[in-house]
Amino acid sequence: MEIQAEEFAGRLAVVLHAPDPAQGILEYRDSEPADLAAACRHLQEDDIVELLKLLPEEISADVIVELGDDLREDILQRLTPKEIADVVEEMATDDAADVVSELEEAKAVEVVDLLEEEDRREIAVLLSYPEDSAGGIMRLEVVWVRSDRTAARAIEKIRELYGEVREDFYIVYVTDREGTLLGRIPLPRLILADPDARVTDVMEEIGQQAYAEQDQEEVAKIFRKYDLVSLPVVDRDQKLLGVITVDDIVDVIHEEAEEDYSRLAGTDEEEFQEESVLRKASLRLPWLVTGLVGGVLSAVVLSRFETSLRSVIALTFFVPVIMAMGGNVAIQSSAVMVRGLALGEINARDGMARLGRELGVSVITGAVCAILIFFAAWLWWNDIRLGIVVGGAMLAVILISTSVGAFVPLSLDRFRIDPALATGPFVTTSNDILGILIYLSLASWIYGGVG
Amino acid sequence: MEIQAEEFAGRLAVVLHAPDPAQGILEYRDSEPADLAAACRHLQEDDIVELLKLLPEEISADVIVELGDDLREDILQRLTPKEIADVVEEMATDDAADVVSELEEAKAVEVVDLLEEEDRREIAVLLSYPEDSAGGIMRLEVVWVRSDRTAARAIEKIRELYGEVREDFYIVYVTDREGTLLGRIPLPRLILADPDARVTDVMEEIGQQAYAEQDQEEVAKIFRKYDLVSLPVVDRDQKLLGVITVDDIVDVIHEEAEEDYSRLAGTDEEEFQEESVLRKASLRLPWLVTGLVGGVLSAVVLSRFETSLRSVIALTFFVPVIMAMGGNVAIQSSAVMVRGLALGEINARDGMARLGRELGVSVITGAVCAILIFFAAWLWWNDIRLGIVVGGAMLAVILISTSVGAFVPLSLDRFRIDPALATGPFVTTSNDILGILIYLSLASWIYGGVG
Repeated sequence: MEIQAEEFAGRLAVVLHAPDPAQGILEYRDSEPADLAAACRHLQEDDIVELLKLLPEEISADVIVELGDDLREDILQRLTPKEIADVVEEMATDDAADVVSELEEAKAVEVVDLLEEEDRREIAVLLSYPEDSAGGIMRLEVVWVRSDRTAARAIEKIRELYGEVREDFYIVYVTDREGTLLGRIPLPRLILADPDARVTDVMEEIGQQAYAEQDQEEVAKIFRKYDLVSLPVVDRDQKLLGVITVDDIVDVIHEEAEEDYSRLAGTDEEEFQEESVLRKASLRLPWLVTGLVGGVLSAVVLSRFETSLRSVIALTFFVPVIMAMGGNVAIQSSAVMVRGLALGEINARDGMARLGRELGVSVITGAVCAILIFFAAWLWWNDIRLGIVVGGAMLAVILISTSVGAFVPLSLDRFRIDPALATGPFVTTSNDILGILIYLSLASWIYGGVG
Repeated sequence: MEIQAEEFAGRLAVVLHAPDPAQGILEYRDSEPADLAAACRHLQEDDIVELLKLLPEEISADVIVELGDDLREDILQRLTPKEIADVVEEMATDDAADVVSELEEAKAVEVVDLLEEEDRREIAVLLSYPEDSAGGIMRLEVVWVRSDRTAARAIEKIRELYGEVREDFYIVYVTDREGTLLGRIPLPRLILADPDARVTDVMEEIGQQAYAEQDQEEVAKIFRKYDLVSLPVVDRDQKLLGVITVDDIVDVIHEEAEEDYSRLAGTDEEEFQEESVLRKASLRLPWLVTGLVGGVLSAVVLSRFETSLRSVIALTFFVPVIMAMGGNVAIQSSAVMVRGLALGEINARDGMARLGRELGVSVITGAVCAILIFFAAWLWWNDIRLGIVVGGAMLAVILISTSVGAFVPLSLDRFRIDPALATGPFVTTSNDILGILIYLSLASWIYGGVG
């Protein structure tokens, strides 16, 4: 059963402040680390540190891994290098490397010096890959067996490793003497095999694999497309380096989606985890100030057309709708592009086709909206010229803003900049100004060239 | 290796139009179903149907599962009930139920009648649960063993079932005589156990489980929190019904994220899969027309203040920035709420605390933006009253729009309506109008009560 974090935190706090916390905590040593970590978010930092010291090291290790980046950073600062080293040794290699990479450099060096030779080497290997590459998210604990062994020997190997590879696993990889990846054997298949059969006769083709330097988003796409639970990671020479498991990929998918979502909303994905009001405000302000600058520019543009606005005051009434619609269509087309790129449904080659399709969409949406607003403006003000100006500007703004909204993410992607930056307030603001400019230029022209 | 879908489709098309396609297709019968399905998206429907008939039934079954909802629907319409029944029998129960549920009713009945008794019964069980519940996404193929058996008997059971449970699995569940779920044994642990040991001595606690009627989003949260690969599904009497695997959950996470994202952008998540320009335009138009209606209302509001605007034309220059900022802050706070609700980080009890925090954020962001625009308006027009009106309106608009943006998703959630409906054009449009109203009311008051 899922446990309510707040209630659980309350019970833990009582135990931690009782006369003999070491005794009291025994009751909770079999709790799920994820539940303990969730409860920590409702505890004082002093209490968390106390709890981590009282729990068995392997449980503390799991709790620290589950804490969430911000809280983990705070807690690690309160632990000594020796205490950190003790729990890091209990972690899977990928988690250990993550924790070490989050420490201040001096402390990281101290912690690493306290580790055993093998752990030290493994962490160094993992830290040599970029954080968001396949190498950066893989773990080195992988169960493999040499191709000249028998099925019985493979089972023996599992026996040796099961204590060490703490995570559950169900694929055994087969390599040659040089460590080149040759194939894979799902555990049920291995169990059913004749014990004397060579593993090469039992194994399946390797199917999918990732290269260490491959981007984590690409890796996530492979998992999703082929419904994988784990994926081996190899180097350019096809040597087996490690394995990525689906639980890490679930986190990647989440992170990427949150990132795109927060860009579109005009904030930072950090905000979803953030509780401090001041910090939340500071994450939103850059976007708001961008909008504010854009707004002042809009004001400048409007003031340039003061004469037109004075002579036909009704023109001002339609500034909001022109502006808003430009922003709306730009957000639609940029969002569709950003997710298409993120899901791998759009690639470099069909970018132009997509752009063409967006233009097609904008012809339809533009025509519909232009006709509606033409009649609204004409009938309401009994001024067909007003209808023509507002309707014409609406068509032009929708055509242009849709195309701009679609084009910018594609271009950013080509230059390997995150296309999601081209959504949200930035897009709306620039399209607001563009819209006003088109609208008032058309107005000055139709109403006789003042401006 | 991942295969380029377009290129692969080209090769398949050549084979399908050659004199002996049945012979030619032999070469591709070992291809990954996911690759074949991706290629199908670039083939004519006639060719897809031909391909599915030529491939072995178990491969065709997998390809159909991977096709994507829209294309699958079109293709199923072109297959006879007999052809559909043949591939459905090759599918895992959850996929089989999905396919049957997508058919027109008359055809579904025909297909089900052609199935074997057991498949018919299983599909009926799965279809009795709502589509987005744990029961609706589970599969019935689950490996379980009775608690009074030995480890050796459990391994024998795997031997019997491995042909039938086509998906890889690595947890064996333990139940009593009545089918009540008691525990679980990971395969590596089973292999290492003494063959004569009772499974109850080898098994672990069950840990997490889902109830059949539980919502799929809740299930996804459990997977994510506890890093699960599979999760048993039970009924209210704790009887084991089936199992949910992580690959289905990855799809759920994706769907939910795409849904929230598309709402925020003002379109429908269907659009991400859609190629038809007309259909794309029709998915966007409802949002745009909402915006248009809002824009016309803004124009009405502005026209009510015509006298004020005529007397102080500079007031009109700041209409865009007030409007845009109201929309921007509303989107930020509504988006933060929507994702917080989706991730389960916000629950009914702390909704008010969140609302309070949003208000705190808006005090800071409002004050900063108000001060900046106050100076911009005052210094630029050398009119301190203009600065006061614009700055004061900015503060009021940011306070109110942030709160409205946060409040609406919370209320929708309480009434069990998707909170994501409260993001995107709807929020911006209503806040546009609200902003103009506040701004011009303040202006009439400060500039002496005309309006």
